[in-house]
Amino acid sequence: MSVEPTAAPLRLGLAGLGTVGIGVVRILQREAALLSARAGRPVAITAVSARDPLKNRDADLSGYAWETDPVALARREDVDVFVEVMGGHEGPARDATEAALRAGKHVVTANKALLAHHGQALAEAAEAAGVALRFEAAVAGGIPVIKTLTEGLAGNRIKRVMGVMNGTCNYILTRMEETGQGYNVLFDECARLGYLEADPNLDVGGIDAGHKLALLAAIAFGTRVSFDAVELEGIGAISLDDIRHAAEMGYRIKLLGVAQMSGRGLEQRMTPCLVPARSPLGQLQGGTNMVVLEGDSVGQIVMRGAGAGEGPTASAVMADVIDIARGFRLPVFGIPARDLAEPVAARAATPAPYYLRMRLLDKPGALAKIATCLGEAGISIDQMRQINQEEAEDDDAIVLFVTHKASPADIEHALGEFERTGVLVEAPVAIRIEQV
Amino acid sequence: MSVEPTAAPLRLGLAGLGTVGIGVVRILQREAALLSARAGRPVAITAVSARDPLKNRDADLSGYAWETDPVALARREDVDVFVEVMGGHEGPARDATEAALRAGKHVVTANKALLAHHGQALAEAAEAAGVALRFEAAVAGGIPVIKTLTEGLAGNRIKRVMGVMNGTCNYILTRMEETGQGYNVLFDECARLGYLEADPNLDVGGIDAGHKLALLAAIAFGTRVSFDAVELEGIGAISLDDIRHAAEMGYRIKLLGVAQMSGRGLEQRMTPCLVPARSPLGQLQGGTNMVVLEGDSVGQIVMRGAGAGEGPTASAVMADVIDIARGFRLPVFGIPARDLAEPVAARAATPAPYYLRMRLLDKPGALAKIATCLGEAGISIDQMRQINQEEAEDDDAIVLFVTHKASPADIEHALGEFERTGVLVEAPVAIRIEQV
Repeated sequence: MSVEPTAAPLRLGLAGLGTVGIGVVRILQREAALLSARAGRPVAITAVSARDPLKNRDADLSGYAWETDPVALARREDVDVFVEVMGGHEGPARDATEAALRAGKHVVTANKALLAHHGQALAEAAEAAGVALRFEAAVAGGIPVIKTLTEGLAGNRIKRVMGVMNGTCNYILTRMEETGQGYNVLFDECARLGYLEADPNLDVGGIDAGHKLALLAAIAFGTRVSFDAVELEGIGAISLDDIRHAAEMGYRIKLLGVAQMSGRGLEQRMTPCLVPARSPLGQLQGGTNMVVLEGDSVGQIVMRGAGAGEGPTASAVMADVIDIARGFRLPVFGIPARDLAEPVAARAATPAPYYLRMRLLDKPGALAKIATCLGEAGISIDQMRQINQEEAEDDDAIVLFVTHKASPADIEHALGEFERTGVLVEAPVAIRIEQV
Repeated sequence: MSVEPTAAPLRLGLAGLGTVGIGVVRILQREAALLSARAGRPVAITAVSARDPLKNRDADLSGYAWETDPVALARREDVDVFVEVMGGHEGPARDATEAALRAGKHVVTANKALLAHHGQALAEAAEAAGVALRFEAAVAGGIPVIKTLTEGLAGNRIKRVMGVMNGTCNYILTRMEETGQGYNVLFDECARLGYLEADPNLDVGGIDAGHKLALLAAIAFGTRVSFDAVELEGIGAISLDDIRHAAEMGYRIKLLGVAQMSGRGLEQRMTPCLVPARSPLGQLQGGTNMVVLEGDSVGQIVMRGAGAGEGPTASAVMADVIDIARGFRLPVFGIPARDLAEPVAARAATPAPYYLRMRLLDKPGALAKIATCLGEAGISIDQMRQINQEEAEDDDAIVLFVTHKASPADIEHALGEFERTGVLVEAPVAIRIEQV
């Protein structure tokens, strides 16, 4: 259990020299002795690949062999672990990962999209080859949530997994509340600050966070990754009014991922939700991530940390590398891939309270018609507020409801009925209140 | 990587059938199939021991062999892992743990006191025997903090570790603020509710939490466990006045453990501190635990969960058992025990702001004398408040200061000088404000 002078080094092939890749280089160069002591053997990069070998990266890469083709890197004789930090769920990242597994190399990846789309096939390939495929860096950056779920809580039947896992979305929502600036202004600010993916819909549309949720759900419930079954809704339609009204009633709006197994099947949602402002999720400000794990024995475990950035993501990559160096082997998703169940996808079925906002024509009986719709849908009302007239235009009245627990289907039905009353000035807003 | 029908079961010998032991029995009986799938092999109890075999424990123990002597249990042929959940750092727990290691058995323990006192010798024995010695359940109950520190953050140089790790103390402090009841009333309430150890000083004196901190410090900094070097101060002297004044200035008082390596050596403190009321530590209410880990790459990771109780503690025991079943082996404290450095114990040296409260004779020049002492000690003042006279008796004046960052030595010097001014009515209170 100690570093023998003769212990074989673990040799890394690093594909991708962007922020995360350079972060890995820096940790390995700065802390070689410490990492070797922890890993029980030296850990060193032998070869790297990147699109442009001539780019100045402010790191000394002279000791490493270069490959222009990541597939060639993945197959090198002098590589034991292929570290994939390029990104993209097709093309070079996928080709090189598959090549590495076929060549019997361990793989460490930060690529949530790749695993969300091809996790099952890659896990089967890794397990058939008897090598590790690890992806701590793919979910919630520096927070070791994959390890916590697969190992730290392995004695639990998991009841629910929740997470705020896209820092850009949480930054936008937090700043909307703080500054009173609208979504579009803050979207532009994020674009200027470089907080957005090349395709911003990956962030604000909830896709990136949805990839992460699908991976957590697979581990939590022993099911095949099924990203296509994630109910996705981005933050683009969240208004300042809703943020303000939610705050007045003691809530905050978050882009919240929730996965839980109900009687009907596996629910996976990545949607805006209200959460109590005083809960850990409600108190999460800015770009930080949070994951909440609920197990039958352990109760609720909350983890909070940086979800992105050079250091945190490289920290997660290094944890996987050191586990491999220590000889830890476990199935990719915690149980063997061939034993993962095909999940029955359930559209959100778990009842919850809802926040409803609507603009009504200010005429006698309008509110009564809405209340009747709710009553007929079997939805009871916990709080009702009429917003003062200054905010409403002309003769309109803005009305807010917080309902008691209602099924999503009943809420949807009621929303349809509202339209038929003829008293709505615009489409009503309904946002789930997740009980955390 | 899957459960082969022929895979050898991992056989547990369970010493202790109190709350935690019965929790382990219940999980194993309830989730045998799930745990086997995750562990890659069956996991089963073969034998148990407890002081009183006849006690009714509301669990079916008929399938297990019984031993009255835990040492005999530890040596049984049909036991692979000795699970020690008896408690006590001498006597049967120590004897049986040593016997198990000598017999080449893996050990999983929830015993913080045992490891805080004998961790080095036990770790060396385990590593010499080539077996695992794991203790996730010993620190912060269900929160997988040992795993996070030794594995999840293995790529980091750890800068600081903090934790609220005694639920009873946090419950008392929280209830003092909520109810305005004094320490003694709430201490008695805890005694009635069964929240206190047989020796309550283990809780309210900070000893139990100090054991946990010493274990975290060893892992975080690669040093030998040195519980004797932990600066310990309990919560018995915390007054309602201080809790109220702290709240008015935006702080809460917590029994906070802090370990950090400074230029002078390893600082380990388990003492009451002020923390910002809006920080995750400040928001921690009731009996819940929280650990904050700071690494050079990952930044700050916060973990929150139940620190005690049947389910959470058994969850942590099971995580260790499943790791052993999966074949994971790492040194007890993350690096080989013989390579752990002997720490240089440093009394708190890291500067911090301080909260000072004092009762002064209400006569001209009194405040000036105190301010002069602070100035001469090189301590500058961030906030000063004089509390309204209703609270002070007779002619006294109560004065609060929040200082800028000052070294603990300078604060101690200033406190001595205050006494010499002759204007203090009673001993001054000084509480560190930990910057979190």
